[in-house]
Amino acid sequence: MASNLDHFFSALADPTRRAVIARLTSGPASVSELHAPHDMALPSFLKHLGKLESAGMVRSLKIGRVRMVHIEAVPMAEAEDWLKTQRRIWEGRLDRLSALAEHLERNGDHG
Amino acid sequence: MASNLDHFFSALADPTRRAVIARLTSGPASVSELHAPHDMALPSFLKHLGKLESAGMVRSLKIGRVRMVHIEAVPMAEAEDWLKTQRRIWEGRLDRLSALAEHLERNGDHG
Repeated sequence: MASNLDHFFSALADPTRRAVIARLTSGPASVSELHAPHDMALPSFLKHLGKLESAGMVRSLKIGRVRMVHIEAVPMAEAEDWLKTQRRIWEGRLDRLSALAEHLERNGDHG
Repeated sequence: MASNLDHFFSALADPTRRAVIARLTSGPASVSELHAPHDMALPSFLKHLGKLESAGMVRSLKIGRVRMVHIEAVPMAEAEDWLKTQRRIWEGRLDRLSALAEHLERNGDHG
């Protein structure tokens, strides 16, 4: 049972796709603008774009002859939220461990 | 040129591996404890653990007959930071757009 998070994280597990996302956070761009900085044949680049699009992380729209691509914020936020939740539990645990260490240290002083 | 982020995001692109990470944020666990909630043969489960370990997201240590697994916080933080950076740029852009919209609206009122 593949969830959305599977697709989001899988889409982000590639430097070309992360570069496209990083570019699109500054605003929409055409496919040729997005492709330009990458030393890669267009068909390969389009496969990366397709993976981002099928993960729901970007959307594209043909305006005349130009295909414009824009980012979808929700999947990025969902992936970030998952990581943030794990970090909070983890940090809570570290806080409890450090409180325990302090407690043991104080008791050591008095013992 | 595969970066650490490739491995981190790829490791997180699977529900079993995310469940293991979520369990380990509450503290270390043995391989059998980690395996128990998953309806999956042990060899398949060990492959998932291996992927997390080779991505540097967990470490394991054999204590007597028991292999204990614990989480590594840094990779999680790096993955979260990357997403947070993108969100900040994105939100900055939305703020600028909304400031522009307000400006245009005010000018419309006076025009």
